[in-house]
Amino acid sequence: MSQTVLAAVMAAPLVPVELRELPLPELPVGGALLRTGLSEVCGTDVHLWHGRLSGVPYPIIPGHVSTGTLGAVRGALADVEGRPLREGDRVAFFDVHRTCGRCLACTVHRTPTRCPHRRVYGITDSVADGLFGGWAQQIYLEPGVTIAKLPDAVTFEAYIGGGCGLLTAVHIIDRARIVMGDTVVVQGAGAVGLSAAALARRAGAGQVILIGGPHDRLALARDMGADHVIPLDTTTPGDRLERVLALTGRLGADVVIEAAGSALAFEEGLLFARNGGAYVIAGHYTNVGDSRINAHEHINRKHLDIRGCWGSEVGHFLRAIRLLDRYAGEVPWARIGARTYALSQINEALADAEAFRIPKALVDPWR
Amino acid sequence: MSQTVLAAVMAAPLVPVELRELPLPELPVGGALLRTGLSEVCGTDVHLWHGRLSGVPYPIIPGHVSTGTLGAVRGALADVEGRPLREGDRVAFFDVHRTCGRCLACTVHRTPTRCPHRRVYGITDSVADGLFGGWAQQIYLEPGVTIAKLPDAVTFEAYIGGGCGLLTAVHIIDRARIVMGDTVVVQGAGAVGLSAAALARRAGAGQVILIGGPHDRLALARDMGADHVIPLDTTTPGDRLERVLALTGRLGADVVIEAAGSALAFEEGLLFARNGGAYVIAGHYTNVGDSRINAHEHINRKHLDIRGCWGSEVGHFLRAIRLLDRYAGEVPWARIGARTYALSQINEALADAEAFRIPKALVDPWR
Amino acid sequence: MSQTVLAAVMAAPLVPVELRELPLPELPVGGALLRTGLSEVCGTDVHLWHGRLSGVPYPIIPGHVSTGTLGAVRGALADVEGRPLREGDRVAFFDVHRTCGRCLACTVHRTPTRCPHRRVYGITDSVADGLFGGWAQQIYLEPGVTIAKLPDAVTFEAYIGGGCGLLTAVHIIDRARIVMGDTVVVQGAGAVGLSAAALARRAGAGQVILIGGPHDRLALARDMGADHVIPLDTTTPGDRLERVLALTGRLGADVVIEAAGSALAFEEGLLFARNGGAYVIAGHYTNVGDSRINAHEHINRKHLDIRGCWGSEVGHFLRAIRLLDRYAGEVPWARIGARTYALSQINEALADAEAFRIPKALVDPWR
Amino acid sequence: MSQTVLAAVMAAPLVPVELRELPLPELPVGGALLRTGLSEVCGTDVHLWHGRLSGVPYPIIPGHVSTGTLGAVRGALADVEGRPLREGDRVAFFDVHRTCGRCLACTVHRTPTRCPHRRVYGITDSVADGLFGGWAQQIYLEPGVTIAKLPDAVTFEAYIGGGCGLLTAVHIIDRARIVMGDTVVVQGAGAVGLSAAALARRAGAGQVILIGGPHDRLALARDMGADHVIPLDTTTPGDRLERVLALTGRLGADVVIEAAGSALAFEEGLLFARNGGAYVIAGHYTNVGDSRINAHEHINRKHLDIRGCWGSEVGHFLRAIRLLDRYAGEVPWARIGARTYALSQINEALADAEAFRIPKALVDPWR
Repeated sequence: MSQTVLAAVMAAPLVPVELRELPLPELPVGGALLRTGLSEVCGTDVHLWHGRLSGVPYPIIPGHVSTGTLGAVRGALADVEGRPLREGDRVAFFDVHRTCGRCLACTVHRTPTRCPHRRVYGITDSVADGLFGGWAQQIYLEPGVTIAKLPDAVTFEAYIGGGCGLLTAVHIIDRARIVMGDTVVVQGAGAVGLSAAALARRAGAGQVILIGGPHDRLALARDMGADHVIPLDTTTPGDRLERVLALTGRLGADVVIEAAGSALAFEEGLLFARNGGAYVIAGHYTNVGDSRINAHEHINRKHLDIRGCWGSEVGHFLRAIRLLDRYAGEVPWARIGARTYALSQINEALADAEAFRIPKALVDPWR
Repeated sequence: MSQTVLAAVMAAPLVPVELRELPLPELPVGGALLRTGLSEVCGTDVHLWHGRLSGVPYPIIPGHVSTGTLGAVRGALADVEGRPLREGDRVAFFDVHRTCGRCLACTVHRTPTRCPHRRVYGITDSVADGLFGGWAQQIYLEPGVTIAKLPDAVTFEAYIGGGCGLLTAVHIIDRARIVMGDTVVVQGAGAVGLSAAALARRAGAGQVILIGGPHDRLALARDMGADHVIPLDTTTPGDRLERVLALTGRLGADVVIEAAGSALAFEEGLLFARNGGAYVIAGHYTNVGDSRINAHEHINRKHLDIRGCWGSEVGHFLRAIRLLDRYAGEVPWARIGARTYALSQINEALADAEAFRIPKALVDPWR
Repeated sequence: MSQTVLAAVMAAPLVPVELRELPLPELPVGGALLRTGLSEVCGTDVHLWHGRLSGVPYPIIPGHVSTGTLGAVRGALADVEGRPLREGDRVAFFDVHRTCGRCLACTVHRTPTRCPHRRVYGITDSVADGLFGGWAQQIYLEPGVTIAKLPDAVTFEAYIGGGCGLLTAVHIIDRARIVMGDTVVVQGAGAVGLSAAALARRAGAGQVILIGGPHDRLALARDMGADHVIPLDTTTPGDRLERVLALTGRLGADVVIEAAGSALAFEEGLLFARNGGAYVIAGHYTNVGDSRINAHEHINRKHLDIRGCWGSEVGHFLRAIRLLDRYAGEVPWARIGARTYALSQINEALADAEAFRIPKALVDPWR
Repeated sequence: MSQTVLAAVMAAPLVPVELRELPLPELPVGGALLRTGLSEVCGTDVHLWHGRLSGVPYPIIPGHVSTGTLGAVRGALADVEGRPLREGDRVAFFDVHRTCGRCLACTVHRTPTRCPHRRVYGITDSVADGLFGGWAQQIYLEPGVTIAKLPDAVTFEAYIGGGCGLLTAVHIIDRARIVMGDTVVVQGAGAVGLSAAALARRAGAGQVILIGGPHDRLALARDMGADHVIPLDTTTPGDRLERVLALTGRLGADVVIEAAGSALAFEEGLLFARNGGAYVIAGHYTNVGDSRINAHEHINRKHLDIRGCWGSEVGHFLRAIRLLDRYAGEVPWARIGARTYALSQINEALADAEAFRIPKALVDPWR
């Protein structure tokens, strides 16, 4: 192994990402190196490039969800169930690290995604801290990072196709508490929305309606498990509401999932939910402005539950892998990652992601 | 007993309420008459007088929550546990009637307050239908109405002081799922807010903070159980948020209860809740306009639960009586009903309620 | 239509069921006749024949779950969502009727299956009351019975194959609160266990392990959705526990479902559940004797949830039909009803059911 | 400060506890010494002395719950909310330490009391490991132990009077999910049962019925908040069931809490619960033998929830202190600790605890 690796570094917002040769770290006990198989360019990376997230310690190596092959390991390494991990294992790791497990959020409020000590690969660690991002040939897995083997049926392409969107979707389904036979409306056809539709289907939804675009993603949404798709570009809000009501005996949906990240989508979703229904808000990863809602009509009289859903937990990561394995034959997660880019093409990948030309760009740093 | 009774009739919105002599009904089997002990003028009645509720079949006899003494009873009458009810019993009845127990809302969605067949004494029944309101000397209890004896410790004044606000508050506490030691913020010092504060205290809240006004209600709020009160008129939103943060170790409240019925209060309450907290929306009985909220900051990133809470159910009625009995010695519910009016003073009572001069006006139709 | 119909009457326990000609009723407004398509002989009928249920008003017409074609209807008839029902419609009805919707169990405790007014077709109504059982050519649908159209994809065979076991299974899944990826163990390969396995699979279970017998039912269990089956007759309790531990990383199952109706199965199931897991008890429809359990080891230290699950509700009936429709192509419910009997063969059907020769006997009263 | 401290050491089961002079440790960064104010002799210590707990590394310093004054501190020390802790502060610490916050139990199953890494002061640490028990003049607070200041209103006597029983009771109340107005039956008048009754009362129970003995504890139970007490020694099981039914309109209790640690109590408690009620099993800290229960009658047909409740979490510790503060004026926790013993009297204290002569023995190592 060479003593340096190639990495794509985002030096600052709105500046082209550049390639750098970076040194490999000395491994502490419990540390390891991951030879990157695939990483991704997701919506978060576009936000990072636009500087929309606060507190990011540029320059950084982006790429928060990644998968690959275990390289050098110092000391004994094990997965969360204590099974040993060895060089050569195909693995994924949970990008959220340093969740403390001891603060009020972790222990009392049971909202570990709100732990103030939480850090995220590819986002909150500077390039000066080391190889903490997936847009690099090697990733440093610091002691304590949660690592899991990929089952044979789970390809790198499927894992990254699901990616962070799948982990969020597992969390969404927890929050949604779908009752068998429920009608579920998913707003958004990005990586989160597509996985949410796929999982709602497998969690027993009686029908899954996905609203979004563009056209080719709606076709993918159907293949992921949506029973009905409603294109955003050729319908009015009134059309969409009418469609949901027509599909639900005029009652509205039992569960609505917001995975669109749009202030208007939030306003619209409130109308889709039935009296006593639930609305999970999961797409507002960044601030896209205020929504105007009517607490009387949309919440109080509807006796509605609205549930914010932030990030994902270790359990979502572990279950995502289990679900990728179980539904490997029937859910085309790999198709979300429409195109794979080399590190040298990373600015092109960012531009494609920004323009919504593809649901997700994959990154292969060894290509 | 005379064959007619005196009733105050609201013939139409914005027209002075007038007194009428109305005939006593022939009782069907299972029907009864209630000699009104006390009824109330609550915020809903002000809304009714302004015509803000849709579908009201004016002319009506207002007064939805009432209590009194059982008069004529035809056939056997029993409470919900099968215990016989007899002439002369001090009773209250659940103003919500005709909830069908068979529709989707009642049986499948378990949101009986959204049952389309639901009717409410004093609001949804016309004077032509009979004595369905409390601003009358007698009230017709149709077969199927839920009736319960008042324990000896529960005075008419305490029952009506609690009134519909107490029933709503029992429902709010169900929705709030307070964990022992939680900090609870209550927005609003009306009948709902005062009872919500009293019950939050008795449901194990570690501290109860009530925000509202005017000054004398805040004193009552303290006596009801609020640990801290924040006057609305002499503080800015920033002051109030700072106060809540100061009282919660900068975390925000575990549970926020909106009992203010104000679009701005809803916006403000979102700020009071901690990450992973809960916000119960219960005060928006009528449409008071839109609120501007930010789904990213207030819901998604906060991982917040928002729970609409509409009306009350039979169980809330029955438990309200139990709680009035249990806390009779320590919660001054009777003080919410600050002044008692005769039927001839009913327009004055409405005016006082509208001007917030008193938390609640009581009505004694025999005075 | 002739003015009498043929029915199989169980005059008393342990006496051969006999055929009788019974008169058709005069229909009240809201009443209807159902031309029986298929009914069933389930485990309950065997219990009825042995006199193991208390309070049964023999003679009765057994057959509690049935489906068929609407015949005469008097007045307007509608399903629970208000859609009209007409003569000739293929329908099913909810065998549980007269649930009052008003008592404490119905309204406050929200356990309508414990409503004291509840009656069940084929079990709690005497032949003197009319055609209240499915082992007859016509069934009287009294006013208030919940009726639902069968979707085109749902055959009579599939509906009755699911039958009461499917309704119970829908309830079980509600109580089980499966989290996506969970390991679910189902004890019992009868109609309840088979449907529970099928639904657990479709509710997102990561793996479903079914324990039971005989051999051919285990094959059916696999086709219904079980990932692993453990034969009861060729394994020891130790073998079975070892198998469950081996399949769960030595942790035990997240959820265990008891659908075996055996005192020993209950003892054994406690061992299968992991720390903090859940155990749903749904198979003890009759008293099969006491179990010996250790509250320290099995409940307290395990921090276990045990949840009894009694009967089914309107919502389970409605969702059962929706699920039969959704999974019509992939779950072979019709195969549970292994053989169809004429009324004249009903004693043979009872004997086959009693001897577990078939999972379920179907009854076609017109054959 | 002298360089050795006096400690009471349990060298092995059934051998008299002996006093030893033990050295003070070198403090690592983040470590501290607690000058013991009060510790306790609870039921667990009796079990320890009888050798009923497995894996205990005798010799040990018993005394798992303790409180005192912070002595030497090395480095910065803070409570769980980040507020600094200083020498001289009156504090308590959470006896459960080394819960990892990273295993499946901690992160995925959310049952941290089942974390395999969990250790408990006074139970799982050997005297060779250091001053890990409260029967000593100083206690070593290792880095990572959760420490909290005692509010001024919370005396050492009240804190230890509550002790581990109070922490368990806070957990019980979480699991019990009391709805305002519920009838709660508590089985057991030990430290757990007394605190459970006190908290059930403050969590909104409509009536609290405590069953236990001896006579003087029942008087204390009333003062703690029980509305009704039933002496165990002068009643039959039939008497007790009749009493519970008489107090609940023949329905049974909404919630039953087992805090008795008796196999017969578990059998009996199943009868007390109403249909659809809940039964929390919290008293079986050790194995006291099997119970005979009938899954049909007691669980399935009753649609009952049984919830095991093991140990306590950081949140229960923190909330226990908040509740001690809030109810300092009305709940006589200090009276549970009926008598205070010097270290030299520790064998006498053990004997008194074993003979149930007192609810709890306090230990003052400086007396």
